[in-house]
Amino acid sequence: MAPLAERMAAIAEAIEIELDRLLPPALGAQARLHEAMRYAVLGGGKRLRPFLVMAGAELFAVPAPRAIRVSVAVELIHGYSLVHDDLPAMDDALTRRGRPSCHRRFDEATAILVGDALQSLAFEVLADPATHPKAAVRCSLVQKLAVAAGSLGMSGGQMIDLEAEGRALGLEQVLELQRLKTGALLEFACEAGALLGDAAAAARAALRAYAADLGLAFQIQDDLLDVTGDAALTGKDLGRDQAAGKATVVGLLGIDGARRRLHDLRVSASRHLDRLDREAAVLREVFEFVISRSN
Amino acid sequence: MAPLAERMAAIAEAIEIELDRLLPPALGAQARLHEAMRYAVLGGGKRLRPFLVMAGAELFAVPAPRAIRVSVAVELIHGYSLVHDDLPAMDDALTRRGRPSCHRRFDEATAILVGDALQSLAFEVLADPATHPKAAVRCSLVQKLAVAAGSLGMSGGQMIDLEAEGRALGLEQVLELQRLKTGALLEFACEAGALLGDAAAAARAALRAYAADLGLAFQIQDDLLDVTGDAALTGKDLGRDQAAGKATVVGLLGIDGARRRLHDLRVSASRHLDRLDREAAVLREVFEFVISRSN
Repeated sequence: MAPLAERMAAIAEAIEIELDRLLPPALGAQARLHEAMRYAVLGGGKRLRPFLVMAGAELFAVPAPRAIRVSVAVELIHGYSLVHDDLPAMDDALTRRGRPSCHRRFDEATAILVGDALQSLAFEVLADPATHPKAAVRCSLVQKLAVAAGSLGMSGGQMIDLEAEGRALGLEQVLELQRLKTGALLEFACEAGALLGDAAAAARAALRAYAADLGLAFQIQDDLLDVTGDAALTGKDLGRDQAAGKATVVGLLGIDGARRRLHDLRVSASRHLDRLDREAAVLREVFEFVISRSN
Repeated sequence: MAPLAERMAAIAEAIEIELDRLLPPALGAQARLHEAMRYAVLGGGKRLRPFLVMAGAELFAVPAPRAIRVSVAVELIHGYSLVHDDLPAMDDALTRRGRPSCHRRFDEATAILVGDALQSLAFEVLADPATHPKAAVRCSLVQKLAVAAGSLGMSGGQMIDLEAEGRALGLEQVLELQRLKTGALLEFACEAGALLGDAAAAARAALRAYAADLGLAFQIQDDLLDVTGDAALTGKDLGRDQAAGKATVVGLLGIDGARRRLHDLRVSASRHLDRLDREAAVLREVFEFVISRSN
């Protein structure tokens, strides 16, 4: 099999093509909105969530076009959250993926509408019969993605994150924040293939458990890079969390403690995959990729 | 039958109870978000859209609990749009329904998240099996509501509206703006009962056509009240559109021309209802209500 990076690039390309096809063209009286939606989601990102959807779908022999549509829906939700998180009232980010953030390239009002319309489009894509012939499967995808994105998932996590500024969260609270803000959508991405493949509840539970470990590992590695990383490699200003007084897993456990936690998560994630009745080599590789990445 | 106002109040009460039940309680680490979501949608509004859903559902003998869930979904989308439209970057509204707007009562970041999470919740509610036993019906509701809310509907209309400030739109453009910004969601509300009742495509088309006339009539009456209304009755600052240099149907057709258009719409809406094979007395009444209201 080709190296992971090559396979990720191939899937990122397929997702790009489908995003381009499903996003409205920059035409019509609302052309500016369509142009800004395309700016916000096309041409960037590692597309980790789509890759997880595709890897999960492969386990259950799901036809690729269906998995690609679900990948697009997940990426639309992810993209909307980045546009809204970057707004001046939120994280006030000037750049995103090396380009001006959406509200700087366009304006704040347009960026708010971009996020809103990307979210609507995600559910439109999922509910369409092209995503799966069985309506019950499509409904299940809509419901689970809505929960993952909503106040008991991603939006709720962002609320906790905003309120956490300047307050000393404990470890449990930091873990809860991460679980909602980034974990919920990763769990959906990992479970989606099993939903498309009509897999048993036990398999879905194992994938969600794997995803929870993966999400936390991703966050810890992010925090470690923030403290120990090379700014030239990460392309980010380092030490931001510390400067912002934000509680992180690394801040609470120390660097060695965080590395031990990464090791434990790796063992735990692997055990969850052992519970599947098939070899999930790609998901094991993704875990290694996430905890060894340098950007 | 009880007068329309009484029946509207009864339905508004039923919707309030169901909204209260389906909105998350103001608990948990993200309690502030939940509190703000409840603030934004509970205890206010004419609930016109829910009333249209219920009236349409009655025509096709749809069990009320199903129609109430769809009403709630529509109202969640409507509520999210009000919260985002009121933001400083958008219409910068200080009050809504006689209370401080959501971003003033809470803060801007919270208000952005409120809108985002209300939208997710709307689709969660629709996709849930409690909304309709047939998954195909639920998917159809999700897809149509997503289109109505998205860039080819409500969000697109708001984009056009923002860009219209200080520009001289022609009649066709003003009509297109209204069709997207408010018409699309009204069309969904009017068609939803027929979708729940598995009605024929012809009935659904007639209801959508009725809704298009109703939506435009609603807007024209709004514009007329802005010019000729009594501020004490409408509870709004009048003459705002003119002051903002916004093109309106009344500005383009004149007061008499707008009243003639209202009359034409009334005839047209009534003809669309004639195409249904059942007596839609309530929808006829709603039309009268909309064009004769003084606030």
